[in-house]
Amino acid sequence: MAELKVKLGSDSYDIHIGTNWISELANQFTQMKFSSNALIISDSNVAPLYSNKIAAVLNSVGFSTEHYSIDPGEQSKSATDAMDIYTKAIESKLDRKSPIVALGGGVVGDLAGFIAATYLRGVPFIQIPTTLLAQVDSSVGGKVAINHPLGKNLIGAFYQPELVFIDTLFLDTLPERELYTGLAEVLKYGVISDCDFFDYLRQNSNDILMKRPETIIKIIHRSCQIKADIVSTDERETGLRAILNFGHTIGHAIEAYTNFEKYNHGEAVAIGMHGAALISYHMGLCSAEVVEKICHCITKFHLPLKAAHCPADKILPLLVRDKKVINGKLNWVLIKDLGQVTIVNNVPDAIIAAALNEIT
Amino acid sequence: MAELKVKLGSDSYDIHIGTNWISELANQFTQMKFSSNALIISDSNVAPLYSNKIAAVLNSVGFSTEHYSIDPGEQSKSATDAMDIYTKAIESKLDRKSPIVALGGGVVGDLAGFIAATYLRGVPFIQIPTTLLAQVDSSVGGKVAINHPLGKNLIGAFYQPELVFIDTLFLDTLPERELYTGLAEVLKYGVISDCDFFDYLRQNSNDILMKRPETIIKIIHRSCQIKADIVSTDERETGLRAILNFGHTIGHAIEAYTNFEKYNHGEAVAIGMHGAALISYHMGLCSAEVVEKICHCITKFHLPLKAAHCPADKILPLLVRDKKVINGKLNWVLIKDLGQVTIVNNVPDAIIAAALNEIT
Repeated sequence: MAELKVKLGSDSYDIHIGTNWISELANQFTQMKFSSNALIISDSNVAPLYSNKIAAVLNSVGFSTEHYSIDPGEQSKSATDAMDIYTKAIESKLDRKSPIVALGGGVVGDLAGFIAATYLRGVPFIQIPTTLLAQVDSSVGGKVAINHPLGKNLIGAFYQPELVFIDTLFLDTLPERELYTGLAEVLKYGVISDCDFFDYLRQNSNDILMKRPETIIKIIHRSCQIKADIVSTDERETGLRAILNFGHTIGHAIEAYTNFEKYNHGEAVAIGMHGAALISYHMGLCSAEVVEKICHCITKFHLPLKAAHCPADKILPLLVRDKKVINGKLNWVLIKDLGQVTIVNNVPDAIIAAALNEIT
Repeated sequence: MAELKVKLGSDSYDIHIGTNWISELANQFTQMKFSSNALIISDSNVAPLYSNKIAAVLNSVGFSTEHYSIDPGEQSKSATDAMDIYTKAIESKLDRKSPIVALGGGVVGDLAGFIAATYLRGVPFIQIPTTLLAQVDSSVGGKVAINHPLGKNLIGAFYQPELVFIDTLFLDTLPERELYTGLAEVLKYGVISDCDFFDYLRQNSNDILMKRPETIIKIIHRSCQIKADIVSTDERETGLRAILNFGHTIGHAIEAYTNFEKYNHGEAVAIGMHGAALISYHMGLCSAEVVEKICHCITKFHLPLKAAHCPADKILPLLVRDKKVINGKLNWVLIKDLGQVTIVNNVPDAIIAAALNEIT
């Protein structure tokens, strides 16, 4: 069991990480001043496995529980699904202190979080992430959103949960490919801010892939810690937080071009990290050895280095749709060394095009 | 010209109040670090009168301006309208620093504010309220929202503007009934926290109704000041801020029962204040004289005391839909004396029913 505090003044909250300890939720819920009716939002993959177990724990300490299950996948992060959930919340008479519980991966967390942020102008939000990706990334940091037909995550908020509750037990039922996608973000933390952690990941890749509990708890804990530190410094993404987007500029464009179907998030980010590493090298910021080490790790974790059938000239215009564009300028997160990145907003188009050609 | 600061830490902002000084906006906009493309959201009543004037001022200091005009009225605060505006924002390439300007009354402010709060997880928001109601109430305090088919303002956020810019010039083109609806909220400020201000309103009702500029600036300034003080103490409506809801519990129910058609907001609040005053009196909290003074002022300002054809037994169940219900308990804002209110959550049903019968 491990604990972490995300320090955000009056919005501070705890992350609890453990193995096979869903019953601990009873303790956590009774400590908070919630109204006694909770809404559990999940998807049709996760709900049959865990929804009743979570409900039973909450019922045991006096909460009534309503359930809402979405179709798995990005297309459920829509305004239509959001409206249906608001209806469910209103019909279930959820009030301003009624907790909304996200039980699932990033899609469930983003959508449920957006509902929690906006229903009655904000109600308590609990994250129970069930995928490695959600455990190390989307459940920490308070970014919630739904998609617009013209782009992903364009409608959202910064809204902090009251609690993030992580149980590595959920990973037992997680498909292998979903484990790898989470590892892409874990790797990212090493690259952007901790070269020792990066080395640990390289040296323990087998234990990680075998999901040894101590190793998994360690990498979740360190990943959350790095993200929490960054988010605490810059809740609203005005500065430092931008480094969390390493690999995401190209990653998002690849996801968009392939309609979020061909590559999952971590795979697209892996390709994007490769692209950003190449740009860093071509800008003279880092050595070829750094690029090589990153590529080696990406491959070890069964993640792709290149996006087949994604022509560079189609990807390029999608980059400027990125939310990080300010007054027409794209901010690139580039590598100086393992564990050290910098933000550059004047990368020549030729270097971007060359990197895109190498990875597509 | 008058100025006020709403103190909310890093979210603090200024309210500027003046007469015939739209050109001053140029000054204000150049001081802020915005991207140079602004979106002006207005409605089809206000846009033809003022939209081009505002745009001309912004254009003069280098901003490009896009316009979006909604149909006037509450029904435009919908998810559908919101989605259309997001589309407009995306197509206009608004980025995280591009200002969204609300030019209109409360509906425009609430809707534009919700867009500003959620587009790209939040962009700069400027309020230019054109009705008295918006100038003294909805533009101050950061409550933004859209409606759900099952209830008003059920989807929203607390999101502070960067600037509230008030020009009393807008009141010249405001229909009389819209002036009166604003006066209901002005009166409320006197009742809940300043008996001298209440007396001022009683004694200067003719000047107010004639819209004498000095008097109007004074009442807008004092109203905003009272609201700003309350909001500064309690941004998220966890305590003190609830007193701003004086008259609104019954008011909202009457608006809902009459489909937001028969009574405008201030009229419903006037009836609700009468109801709350009666409940206060029946609870033994205030004297009959206080009730009488409030009724006198309501009538002076051409506002109704009673809701015809709104049977008490239909209004009662609508009260518990109120967002202020926590764990099934309704919090009433009741009067102890002019300028002094208290919150009571154990009003007997019989007293509520009796008051409803008197006002319906």
